[in-house]
Amino acid sequence: MSFFDRLSERIDAVDSVVSVGLDPDPDRLPEQVQGAELPRWAFNRRIIDATHEHAACYKPNAAFYEDPDGWRALAETVAYAHGKNVPVLLDAKRADIGNTARQYATALDTVDAITVNPYLGGDSLQPFLDRTSKGVFVLCRTSNPGSGDLQELELAGGEQVYERVASLASTWNTGGNVGLVVGATAPAELETVRELVGDLPFLVPGVGTQGGDERAAVEYGLGDGVGLVNSSRGIIFAGEAATGHDDPARYFGAAGEAAKRLRRRLNRFR
Amino acid sequence: MSFFDRLSERIDAVDSVVSVGLDPDPDRLPEQVQGAELPRWAFNRRIIDATHEHAACYKPNAAFYEDPDGWRALAETVAYAHGKNVPVLLDAKRADIGNTARQYATALDTVDAITVNPYLGGDSLQPFLDRTSKGVFVLCRTSNPGSGDLQELELAGGEQVYERVASLASTWNTGGNVGLVVGATAPAELETVRELVGDLPFLVPGVGTQGGDERAAVEYGLGDGVGLVNSSRGIIFAGEAATGHDDPARYFGAAGEAAKRLRRRLNRFR
Repeated sequence: MSFFDRLSERIDAVDSVVSVGLDPDPDRLPEQVQGAELPRWAFNRRIIDATHEHAACYKPNAAFYEDPDGWRALAETVAYAHGKNVPVLLDAKRADIGNTARQYATALDTVDAITVNPYLGGDSLQPFLDRTSKGVFVLCRTSNPGSGDLQELELAGGEQVYERVASLASTWNTGGNVGLVVGATAPAELETVRELVGDLPFLVPGVGTQGGDERAAVEYGLGDGVGLVNSSRGIIFAGEAATGHDDPARYFGAAGEAAKRLRRRLNRFR
Repeated sequence: MSFFDRLSERIDAVDSVVSVGLDPDPDRLPEQVQGAELPRWAFNRRIIDATHEHAACYKPNAAFYEDPDGWRALAETVAYAHGKNVPVLLDAKRADIGNTARQYATALDTVDAITVNPYLGGDSLQPFLDRTSKGVFVLCRTSNPGSGDLQELELAGGEQVYERVASLASTWNTGGNVGLVVGATAPAELETVRELVGDLPFLVPGVGTQGGDERAAVEYGLGDGVGLVNSSRGIIFAGEAATGHDDPARYFGAAGEAAKRLRRRLNRFR
């Protein structure tokens, strides 16, 4: 069964396209988990408990797990999310060549999907694309202010680089497992990319803390109803603003409420 | 002291611009190290013992360390290389945005330099660039067959994408810590990039197993005498072809010989 078929079932089951970004910034973990053996895992477990009924997907960003305890925390997190029937997309933005790309692709042994960077070209992504039961989201138009430095350069034929990446990604999609990353902070580009690639599912980051356009994220991000709209800090650290936030129930309850509210807002546009 | 000043001293001290890629592919580790608690670290330690007198730098690729034992093996490897006075360049090809990029940049707490991917734009690299005592090598023109998919696209003004990346990298170099990755499999492009960026040091992969042009690697890869020419498998797995390769002394001795020979070949062009 393909990743997008499984994701489609999950979206139907929870009536949600919300991706919850699991970015346990060590500087922001609440005191309640800091005494745990693996604080990031203790944090993620409670976030998953609080949010899984509203989550189509969990998206841990690899940057927050790159140390010995981090990889253990990530492995526990993935297993726990799977126990709640939620797929896991590793936001790794990886790209390398030859035997090194093959090594990076082994990350797909444990997670359901991954994000990759297209700068090195199609052959660098082949070891990921070959895993046809897994999802491969290619960075296309990112949500940061400097994304235009390369992505918006105009090519000799008139298209911009990110448009060419979208078209290339379509040609790389022989296994039916390719998606695109297009930020909600660029609603016009979301529409442009959607017109270029038919029904490819998008992962749309940039709503929440980054202030992206939720309507455009849903309207253009879903391909045949399948896609993901991600919020990370806006959900997992929602408890920082909660009254009585040193009470674990309130702190993590606020994350659950934030995920639920985002689901409701996004569902108005589905 | 900047990374490039330290690298320059190291190049002078060993009369070598050889970067030894530490990519301990688990499928190729010799039996002698497979019983060790951390086989990758046991392997790297012996490779370092055998090659350090010929090495300007060690370049572990992060792909081979992405699990709990892997990050421990990497930490031991970095410390051991430093004990031999050899700087360490982490080949991570990282890129991400905002707080996530800042998190990735903490890798520079322990290593001396890193490779990064420019697709997300200048702001995504700022947390790396801000570490002005560390080296930041920006992917420009990579050594794989598909590198042309994006890197050689022609822009409206006539330049190609990799040329624009080279020019952008020059503008990002306000801290004097930026280098470029340009593959030896593209000798003409090496010359083009050198003309664009003055004295920026290059990391040139693709000699050895990939068959790149060693003369061009040295002639265009060094900026004011500073730069690195990398071989990974051609050095660290040279022992596979050695007579009596199940004898550790012969197996690792072959790696030392391979590093020494590459140094000699490259030095003919310096």
